[in-house]
Amino acid sequence: MNYILKDENAIYYECGYSSDNALFLQCGSESFFITDSRYSIEAKELVRDAEVVTSKDLVSSARKIIKKSKIKKITFDPKEWSLYAYQMLAKKSKVDFKPQLDFSHKKRVIKDEKELEILSKAAKLGRKAFTTLAKELNKKGFGEDEYSLTYTAQSILSDYGRYSLSFDPIVAIEANAAKPHALPTDIKLKRSNLLLVDAGLKYERYCSDRTRTVSADKNFIFDTEQKFKSKKIQKAYDTVLKAHDHAIAKARCGMKAREVDALTRDIITKAGFGKYFVHSTGHGVGLDIHEMPYISSKSDSVIKDGMVYTIEPGIYIPGEFGIRIEDMVAMIDGKAKVL
Amino acid sequence: MNYILKDENAIYYECGYSSDNALFLQCGSESFFITDSRYSIEAKELVRDAEVVTSKDLVSSARKIIKKSKIKKITFDPKEWSLYAYQMLAKKSKVDFKPQLDFSHKKRVIKDEKELEILSKAAKLGRKAFTTLAKELNKKGFGEDEYSLTYTAQSILSDYGRYSLSFDPIVAIEANAAKPHALPTDIKLKRSNLLLVDAGLKYERYCSDRTRTVSADKNFIFDTEQKFKSKKIQKAYDTVLKAHDHAIAKARCGMKAREVDALTRDIITKAGFGKYFVHSTGHGVGLDIHEMPYISSKSDSVIKDGMVYTIEPGIYIPGEFGIRIEDMVAMIDGKAKVL
Repeated sequence: MNYILKDENAIYYECGYSSDNALFLQCGSESFFITDSRYSIEAKELVRDAEVVTSKDLVSSARKIIKKSKIKKITFDPKEWSLYAYQMLAKKSKVDFKPQLDFSHKKRVIKDEKELEILSKAAKLGRKAFTTLAKELNKKGFGEDEYSLTYTAQSILSDYGRYSLSFDPIVAIEANAAKPHALPTDIKLKRSNLLLVDAGLKYERYCSDRTRTVSADKNFIFDTEQKFKSKKIQKAYDTVLKAHDHAIAKARCGMKAREVDALTRDIITKAGFGKYFVHSTGHGVGLDIHEMPYISSKSDSVIKDGMVYTIEPGIYIPGEFGIRIEDMVAMIDGKAKVL
Repeated sequence: MNYILKDENAIYYECGYSSDNALFLQCGSESFFITDSRYSIEAKELVRDAEVVTSKDLVSSARKIIKKSKIKKITFDPKEWSLYAYQMLAKKSKVDFKPQLDFSHKKRVIKDEKELEILSKAAKLGRKAFTTLAKELNKKGFGEDEYSLTYTAQSILSDYGRYSLSFDPIVAIEANAAKPHALPTDIKLKRSNLLLVDAGLKYERYCSDRTRTVSADKNFIFDTEQKFKSKKIQKAYDTVLKAHDHAIAKARCGMKAREVDALTRDIITKAGFGKYFVHSTGHGVGLDIHEMPYISSKSDSVIKDGMVYTIEPGIYIPGEFGIRIEDMVAMIDGKAKVL
């Protein structure tokens, strides 16, 4: 099969190296990794089973290789290519460029044993970092603002520079946690505040992703047993936790993604918080922090062994508070196992 | 004029807020900011002069607004849209979608007074961070590996979480500096090593960008006067510095970008290092870390007052060392002023 990839993680998946300016080309049995001179030293060291081509104009080099190879058709993902780049690639070409949506993501949706090991290790390191973070925040976090708390989370998640992060950690206090993708503010952490932390790290380029919401009492830890002073918060929290636990217990291979979504959503809706659960139940995790399968109320994707995704129900009451509890699960022997 | 924007910084430029899932739509005199529910609280607080629309399907909402507005044509940048997203936007639409390459970047290439102030402040903060970093590295950097040194650079550049970074800092020792976009390794910093640091921070979302290459002697600082033990390194360093200083002194409004590129390249080529200068002389800096004008050997863009770009010649000898010296300049009253 012939295909051309442009996305950094899609390329990494094929040959074990990538950069932010690269193409990967599979023409029959021949593989090519095309990048510019800034990356050529590393590419030559690290690219597996593909010829490294250094070029100032990646697309034009790809066109030349495609032309020379005399292939007749080649698959690409129309989400990976800008309209402009696609036009440069395909214009006046005699080759048939066959669009296939999510071409690489579809290849990557079932994780093999090696990938499951890496993701499990990523999740373990992420969990450990939450433990360390709680200790650090108990010591030095009170009185610090969200910028400083976020920096502390970054430092600990990255193990002081050892790991890349899956995304900028979210560390949000009380009403700011009502924004599912909150940016840091000047708000300072006070005793017994609601504190939401959503963070992950990359291990061998695979992402971890985890969220805990806690009452920042004395010696708090990021576990799921939490006591809030506000009855309203406690009710919402207990609802989210019930939804989270229920979905993890009941998710099965063979279900549709929307059925897994319903496992959390029905509980939240029945408790009267339905309109405050403003996002999907989860998303796949792998080389990308968001990938297939998407656990949304509209998805008919069938859940299978080897899939890895998050279960992350939430309740967000604007101006008041937000709660989210998130774990990564892998489908193993038909059931969801928390990583 | 009607236009639709998808790029995060392009959108921020129009309305003072953006997120990683947003569209901005200008239909006649009406402006719309479309995002999903995760961002709607912040959008309503921060978007300037545009109606905030919350949607689960941004493109479909944009199509509805476009249809309702009865406009006949609308401009978009084919680099901003994936082939897939563009097809979703434009399919069966009666509106004429007019491609205009670099539509937003072209708008943004001349910085106004306010932007120049912000960029100048960003550069100043970046410079100050280099001074602080040198002090810290002199105290604690020797014996640390590139991961740890990069973390230290991140901590200081971000002022411990206060600022976002323009990009992941590059902190590279000796031969690793020969990779213009080096990733960190386990190599540890030793006394008198060649040390390259390329780093920047964002102030009010505008980027700074700066590189210094130093001999990490006792009490080193990130200035441009450096003494290396190796004659070969010293010769290359003096050449890069001469090229850097010459381009800053001689760049003028009215020159073509390739003429500015030649100001550095000719000096490096004459000194016999031409083939080791593997990238362009510089790039524009603004909301994006790489934007117009591109100071490359092929660009006919004319340099004008209000443009802000980097001058960053380099010499990279694979397996041995790399040198780069980079400053940001603004074109003011016809000349290049270092920010």
